[in-house]
Amino acid sequence: MEKIKVGVAGYGVIGQRLADGVALQKDMELVGVADVAPTLSIRALKEKGMPYDLYCAIDDTTALDNAGIPVSGKMDDLLQKVDIMLDATSAGIGAKNKKLYEKYGLKAIFQGGEKNEVADVFFHGYANYEKGIDQQFLKLTSCNTTGLIRAVDCIDREVGVEKVAITIIRRVADPGDYHRGLTNALKVDEAPNHQAVDLMSIMPHVNATGILVHTPVTHGHIITVVATPKKKIGKSELLEMFYNHPRIRVVKIKDGFLGNASLFRYARDLGNPRGDMYEIAVWEESIVNSGDDIMFAINIPQEAVVIPENMDAIRAATCMQTDRLEGVNLTNKYLGMGRWK
Amino acid sequence: MEKIKVGVAGYGVIGQRLADGVALQKDMELVGVADVAPTLSIRALKEKGMPYDLYCAIDDTTALDNAGIPVSGKMDDLLQKVDIMLDATSAGIGAKNKKLYEKYGLKAIFQGGEKNEVADVFFHGYANYEKGIDQQFLKLTSCNTTGLIRAVDCIDREVGVEKVAITIIRRVADPGDYHRGLTNALKVDEAPNHQAVDLMSIMPHVNATGILVHTPVTHGHIITVVATPKKKIGKSELLEMFYNHPRIRVVKIKDGFLGNASLFRYARDLGNPRGDMYEIAVWEESIVNSGDDIMFAINIPQEAVVIPENMDAIRAATCMQTDRLEGVNLTNKYLGMGRWK
Amino acid sequence: MEKIKVGVAGYGVIGQRLADGVALQKDMELVGVADVAPTLSIRALKEKGMPYDLYCAIDDTTALDNAGIPVSGKMDDLLQKVDIMLDATSAGIGAKNKKLYEKYGLKAIFQGGEKNEVADVFFHGYANYEKGIDQQFLKLTSCNTTGLIRAVDCIDREVGVEKVAITIIRRVADPGDYHRGLTNALKVDEAPNHQAVDLMSIMPHVNATGILVHTPVTHGHIITVVATPKKKIGKSELLEMFYNHPRIRVVKIKDGFLGNASLFRYARDLGNPRGDMYEIAVWEESIVNSGDDIMFAINIPQEAVVIPENMDAIRAATCMQTDRLEGVNLTNKYLGMGRWK
Amino acid sequence: MEKIKVGVAGYGVIGQRLADGVALQKDMELVGVADVAPTLSIRALKEKGMPYDLYCAIDDTTALDNAGIPVSGKMDDLLQKVDIMLDATSAGIGAKNKKLYEKYGLKAIFQGGEKNEVADVFFHGYANYEKGIDQQFLKLTSCNTTGLIRAVDCIDREVGVEKVAITIIRRVADPGDYHRGLTNALKVDEAPNHQAVDLMSIMPHVNATGILVHTPVTHGHIITVVATPKKKIGKSELLEMFYNHPRIRVVKIKDGFLGNASLFRYARDLGNPRGDMYEIAVWEESIVNSGDDIMFAINIPQEAVVIPENMDAIRAATCMQTDRLEGVNLTNKYLGMGRWK
Repeated sequence: MEKIKVGVAGYGVIGQRLADGVALQKDMELVGVADVAPTLSIRALKEKGMPYDLYCAIDDTTALDNAGIPVSGKMDDLLQKVDIMLDATSAGIGAKNKKLYEKYGLKAIFQGGEKNEVADVFFHGYANYEKGIDQQFLKLTSCNTTGLIRAVDCIDREVGVEKVAITIIRRVADPGDYHRGLTNALKVDEAPNHQAVDLMSIMPHVNATGILVHTPVTHGHIITVVATPKKKIGKSELLEMFYNHPRIRVVKIKDGFLGNASLFRYARDLGNPRGDMYEIAVWEESIVNSGDDIMFAINIPQEAVVIPENMDAIRAATCMQTDRLEGVNLTNKYLGMGRWK
Repeated sequence: MEKIKVGVAGYGVIGQRLADGVALQKDMELVGVADVAPTLSIRALKEKGMPYDLYCAIDDTTALDNAGIPVSGKMDDLLQKVDIMLDATSAGIGAKNKKLYEKYGLKAIFQGGEKNEVADVFFHGYANYEKGIDQQFLKLTSCNTTGLIRAVDCIDREVGVEKVAITIIRRVADPGDYHRGLTNALKVDEAPNHQAVDLMSIMPHVNATGILVHTPVTHGHIITVVATPKKKIGKSELLEMFYNHPRIRVVKIKDGFLGNASLFRYARDLGNPRGDMYEIAVWEESIVNSGDDIMFAINIPQEAVVIPENMDAIRAATCMQTDRLEGVNLTNKYLGMGRWK
Repeated sequence: MEKIKVGVAGYGVIGQRLADGVALQKDMELVGVADVAPTLSIRALKEKGMPYDLYCAIDDTTALDNAGIPVSGKMDDLLQKVDIMLDATSAGIGAKNKKLYEKYGLKAIFQGGEKNEVADVFFHGYANYEKGIDQQFLKLTSCNTTGLIRAVDCIDREVGVEKVAITIIRRVADPGDYHRGLTNALKVDEAPNHQAVDLMSIMPHVNATGILVHTPVTHGHIITVVATPKKKIGKSELLEMFYNHPRIRVVKIKDGFLGNASLFRYARDLGNPRGDMYEIAVWEESIVNSGDDIMFAINIPQEAVVIPENMDAIRAATCMQTDRLEGVNLTNKYLGMGRWK
Repeated sequence: MEKIKVGVAGYGVIGQRLADGVALQKDMELVGVADVAPTLSIRALKEKGMPYDLYCAIDDTTALDNAGIPVSGKMDDLLQKVDIMLDATSAGIGAKNKKLYEKYGLKAIFQGGEKNEVADVFFHGYANYEKGIDQQFLKLTSCNTTGLIRAVDCIDREVGVEKVAITIIRRVADPGDYHRGLTNALKVDEAPNHQAVDLMSIMPHVNATGILVHTPVTHGHIITVVATPKKKIGKSELLEMFYNHPRIRVVKIKDGFLGNASLFRYARDLGNPRGDMYEIAVWEESIVNSGDDIMFAINIPQEAVVIPENMDAIRAATCMQTDRLEGVNLTNKYLGMGRWK
């Protein structure tokens, strides 16, 4: 079978992980990545010996040339070689790129930072795979929403979920971010947060709301979820659901998983590239009933969590797999998800 | 009328604020404070010219003498002059001091760090004032629980509260703390957190549970509350309840109250001693309905929030006021609470 | 004697402290403060009952009116009542205001954020008081430079200083700042830092250079200084110099002054308004000889450190005192500096 | 040639990196690692499929067994199979282990946390390789000292160094550390710091002193060095020295290397296991002359920086190479150091 040819626009925090993710999919071919300037990530690409071809997304290659970065061509050259683009450019650029993709008749997957209007479908691999099938333009949910929906969809498919009230304890920057930050302060956003609203877009039968609080840390958001299932469940039932989900890792405080930084450390010790983790984690000891509701805390590794759902999106949009479970399972297999279970 | 004579044991973060709080009550007399070593707070007391008499809580006064701190006597001297002690010593010391208080037939108020067994009553000024009347030993709720109960009791007295599911986003240290800390990490505690359990001790008719996450900041805990009232209420009704409570300050993000650090800054700009704030704050824009539940976020200024309820405790234990509202209102008046409304 | 009439433009972090500082000078009269919007500081001013008259620095008073803030007039009204303005507006606004000051024939003191060109003299109370005498426009050094020069000038007047190499460990935001921040990162600036360059402007006979590293904290910069005095001095001689300086506080790690946060806590415990401190601190245990050089660490309380030198500047510019020591000593007296010695 | 057989005691932050480092040396064989409990690092080892054999360093294997961790034997079993041990146990344990090593006639390398008395030689690969040759017990310098000496030795071998005055801006915890931390505070240590004293142990002809300030970050210490060379050098000469050193990476702020977190990010993007970096970095724009002195800032990646010097130590102690440059160059080759130049 011929491999689907994939390009990645924007080689930043998300883009480089998308490229790595595609490179791991045995039924996809990463044709190249596009960017505009010799950022640290591009410099690292060079120091690694250019494992991926780089295309310049602007006309002027001077900055890249001056930094000694080998350039394989322009954006148009890349677009002529691919079937689908993963667009991980800065918010707003994707909407502009869309015209290019249309010009070349390409499909494209946009990230959570773009406006919903950019896409035909607001997509989540597990929750609404079917909606993405054979669509030209998909937009993925953002990191928090992606992880949150994994957990809520997991419960919903078993017993149904009526409503969720979430508290997002948001990490405010990624490691190495110098363009944003918060120092010794918590910051409260107006409620409801967009993640709850987005969840309702993807899962319209669930009532969702919540409060988001920014915290001055860099490793992983933590979300507490108060879920009202349609049928009351206890801790052990919830645990079993989560244990069986390939993209959810159940961890225990008593094993040393004390917080978001433990998970980052664990991923580094696992030897995962960049210390990344694709799975969300749920703390076993955080699960408690509140009357008929059930409450728990999950960890969202913001830099890598959306990679699997992006792979799913390629599968759906290009009709590689038209069955939801077939699609996500292939993604999981190539990314090695659930291998620890 | 003769003033109630009050002593404070332990002149640390809480102790010095208790002393200041007592000094503001026109119907109480602060006889003195007791401590053991020339800490920064004691050195500051000296630099201010010893507005409060200091008693040495151990036999050996060498450390205080060497630092040039004037000592007015020993702990026993203090105990012979007072009617009631506020014990704000390190956790565990209060239980030992209790024997001394018994020896002198004194009443005493212990803080949240002590075990519940130390006291006859687990006390909160607004929620169970009556239980503290004429009791010898009271224990106050901790800072988070004190603030949380203010909000829950406020709703409960209006429409009844069936259950609450809370997420505590805990500040991990106070400004100037060097003996504990957390760096670039969130830490999850086993659920349910003790604050939910404590709330149920004070308000046994409410079902409470929750998750606590430690964050590396120093100014104010933030708690999100998902409350199930007995009668559904909307945002405007909740706001009205909170506006009318003298110990709750409603603030708006759009006015510049962006998070816990804004409140700390505001209290400094107000000229409050130490930049302290006695009130909890609730963010108006955080209030949202979740089905029949209502969700909101409150700020707990951990260093000073328990001071009013400690004053209430003195009033109840010594029968200064045997009516709940009479007692708390007098505390509020002397502390200037609600003066901004 | 008639009091000098002073106005303050910009009621932010610095402006409100300048206003308080002027209010403490018995030979000055604070006529009022000017600002444009209902910031938290302005809201706090209102909650305190408007101890200072507020003038609106823009034509449109709607925002202030809507927030219920009493306005005493426009900027022009204020300017007609004063002899001198302290301009603590955002960087760049001062240069615009200068034209207004010229229109009314007023003197003015600008802060460190303005460009040097705005002023006739780059001023430091202790180091070059004489240069400021009878000048119309002075610009103060920034917080780090102000504190640094205090220490270097103190040594220089005793034994002469040939050169200094400094490392500024900069706090990146003030408590309550949400518009800037850094999270889990140190940031290195290009050397030499402007503080070293500025020091040479004020003290041209000293060779100064240095490196600045931003750190994610809010309470006080720390500067390490490697000074080459013209005559070798040891720890005890340096200590004596510092002990005798009214704007330098010598503190000991062994007394509990463990770092910048200890000093912030101490200032709060002292009951200083806002927990401010006018003095820089030097850690006794940080002083070491490096060959013929001497090295030490100082703490710069960034929010309040420049207040005394601003008072000095008023004294110099308006010829209240034409003798350096007479001028600074009067400032010190009214601010209570050195009272602890 | 037969490979040197190496064991690693303590599989924590340093131990696991030592094991990886040994595994990369083609002339060494990693026999196994020893630890006592199912820490996160040990759990990750299991999840990776036990690439290294684990030996239990205590009699009781229950904890490891219960966690399902395969154990290959006891500490004694490991000691009988190796030529030399790298001891990266918690401070103080190494001194106890030394008796075991003596019992089996083994050589051993201890880490910086152990007391100097534990070893025959205090060792640094570049600065005093010769002293380690054929010695039984070596102790490595700590992370800061190791990196600092690299830079100072580099200058010293070119032009001689008379003295250095350093400011260590220390990261206070590693990513994932929950047992220590600092929140919104800088902490000053008594001067001189041990790193300066240790430098003088290794390089007795250099006068060194300095101040250490702890900062609440996790990625890399930054040290500013004021060096007095025996012959004055300028920026370009210093840069050339550093460029030619295989364990020093010269980086530029203008390329995006803004601070310690940029280097951590870059190492992750390079695909280095755990996002580790063996090199120290020096910021080109930080280099400035201070009279005849020269000042610069270096970055110390605390988790991995000592690995190369540990490999050197094995080479020296076991006489694999008795020539300094031959030894360190082989280490560099196998670790891929300097490959980017």
